[in-house]
Amino acid sequence: MIEVPVDLPGRACRLLAGPGLLAQAGTLCAEAGLHGTCAIITDENVGRLHGAAATQSLATAGFAPRVLTVPAGENSKSLSAAEDLIDRMLDAGLDRGSFVVALGGGVVGDLAGFVAAIYLRGIPCVQIPTSIVAQVDSSVGGKTGVNARAGKNLIGAFHQPRLVLADTLTLETLPDREYREGFAEVIKHSVIRDAAMLEELDPAAPRADLAPLIARNIAIKAAIVSQDEEERTGLRALLNFGHTVGHAIENAAGYGRLLHGEAISLGMYAALFVSEKKYGLPREQADKVRAKLRAYGLPVVLPPDLGTDALLSAMRHDKKFAAGQIRYVVAPHLGEAFVADDVTEDDIRAAIDSLRK
Amino acid sequence: MIEVPVDLPGRACRLLAGPGLLAQAGTLCAEAGLHGTCAIITDENVGRLHGAAATQSLATAGFAPRVLTVPAGENSKSLSAAEDLIDRMLDAGLDRGSFVVALGGGVVGDLAGFVAAIYLRGIPCVQIPTSIVAQVDSSVGGKTGVNARAGKNLIGAFHQPRLVLADTLTLETLPDREYREGFAEVIKHSVIRDAAMLEELDPAAPRADLAPLIARNIAIKAAIVSQDEEERTGLRALLNFGHTVGHAIENAAGYGRLLHGEAISLGMYAALFVSEKKYGLPREQADKVRAKLRAYGLPVVLPPDLGTDALLSAMRHDKKFAAGQIRYVVAPHLGEAFVADDVTEDDIRAAIDSLRK
Repeated sequence: MIEVPVDLPGRACRLLAGPGLLAQAGTLCAEAGLHGTCAIITDENVGRLHGAAATQSLATAGFAPRVLTVPAGENSKSLSAAEDLIDRMLDAGLDRGSFVVALGGGVVGDLAGFVAAIYLRGIPCVQIPTSIVAQVDSSVGGKTGVNARAGKNLIGAFHQPRLVLADTLTLETLPDREYREGFAEVIKHSVIRDAAMLEELDPAAPRADLAPLIARNIAIKAAIVSQDEEERTGLRALLNFGHTVGHAIENAAGYGRLLHGEAISLGMYAALFVSEKKYGLPREQADKVRAKLRAYGLPVVLPPDLGTDALLSAMRHDKKFAAGQIRYVVAPHLGEAFVADDVTEDDIRAAIDSLRK
Repeated sequence: MIEVPVDLPGRACRLLAGPGLLAQAGTLCAEAGLHGTCAIITDENVGRLHGAAATQSLATAGFAPRVLTVPAGENSKSLSAAEDLIDRMLDAGLDRGSFVVALGGGVVGDLAGFVAAIYLRGIPCVQIPTSIVAQVDSSVGGKTGVNARAGKNLIGAFHQPRLVLADTLTLETLPDREYREGFAEVIKHSVIRDAAMLEELDPAAPRADLAPLIARNIAIKAAIVSQDEEERTGLRALLNFGHTVGHAIENAAGYGRLLHGEAISLGMYAALFVSEKKYGLPREQADKVRAKLRAYGLPVVLPPDLGTDALLSAMRHDKKFAAGQIRYVVAPHLGEAFVADDVTEDDIRAAIDSLRK
């Protein structure tokens, strides 16, 4: 087990990665000072695979766990699903001394984290992410939320988890497509912060050996978050590399057609295009990133029915548009990124069109 | 205009009370560093009376205000009403640089504050409370939220307002019953913190002269909140004097039948009973409080259809019950209170029965 240091003054937050952490969840929750009743929020798929192990570990350590299951998929990331969970938690008698365990991928983590944030004005949350995306990205940093009719993650709260347990054994049961999509965020981390990591990424590496890579990515995310927790200085915004166009693609395609990482892969192609044309990213560096995205089987061509105007319109609804201004993350070199404020709509239009070949 | 000092490190929060503040809202929002589009969230009644004045003041100061109205009454304090407002704010193009103005009583303040807390993970909120309860209590301190099926305020967030403008001119249009109920919270403040204020309360005082009293109450609330913002040390819990039984009465009666302050008045009778029987509150001090509640026409007898068992059951669903333990606020003297942990269910049963005479 690898412990990733994190510096969030005034808050207890412990980040761990390694095989077998799920089985230790109860002990680790007790060490974190938690007690009493907890709600294990999970989806049907993950609940079937890991719900019993989570329950057993927590019950053995003296907790009173209650499993609450939501349907798998993005549709569960809604305010009405949150309300339904809250009603079930109230029925189960969870009080201010209780806590939430989020057991699952990004959808479950965002939803359960948000429920913990607003239940009785906030109770602690333990994240047990079971997908690559959730382990390296969404479970770390305290962003929680649900979708609005007009777009993804438009409703939410900052609520730091008390504990994040990235159990790499849970990756063994991940369907291949979901495993691969997770590497979009890993590749993003290497583009913005860790060029050396890109070389080391191997799609054929055994999942059982991933703990050091997961921990390395959690450390990148945690370092950025601890310096700009609520996205005020612009540093945290670097994590949006590929996400401006990526979110628009995800939104316009309709949730579920493209996985998040697949849409982000296309968004990174667009961001690489802009970075190369306008901010001096060397061609061979951009090609290295493109080759790695292809090596993980991530999409390189936009679904033809997604029109450029529809994507630009979806972009304008994005949280990243402060006061109508486009804030677009670009990389002048591998391992370095910044928020450019002079990217034009024409630049993005050209970048989107480059995804059609 | 009276400015109430508040000490919330790291956050800008300005508290003002006085006649005519609504007309100055635009200027004061600009001084607070706000800009751009804002949503004025209000209800049908307050919107009709003060919506135009708020809009004009903000527009004149260069803001782009948009009035969003909800039906008057407790039913608007729901997660679905919050979602509806969020959808309308997204349609209106409010982004991370925008802000919310809560124009109304406690329901509007709690709902609009919560919407501001979760919109794009949080945008600033300006509270313009128009009722006594909202001015002296609910608009100050950052508690926001909506009701769950199982009870009041069970869903919410801490989100400090950027600015609170308690315009005492808006009290002139308050219906008599809503005016009087507000004094339950004022009397509560005197019981827990300011015995001298009790003597000065005069139901016949002209509403136009209330600014110093409003400011004095905001100062009591702000001083407590600034020392225990998220209800961790127990200090903020003192504000719950009368609220354990009061909330249960409100909940069991069904929202709307008793106003909040009316239910709290009954809850304070119960808390005075327990304080007198078990914690040495002198009879003549308790009687002074009871006389003042009666002077404001607040109820002294429980509606006969509310059974004691139903009230005790409603209490168990309350947030104030940490790990099943009753945490009940008592006053050993006028002006002083503490959280007792040895109040039994029998004590509360006897206190509730005392409300039946």
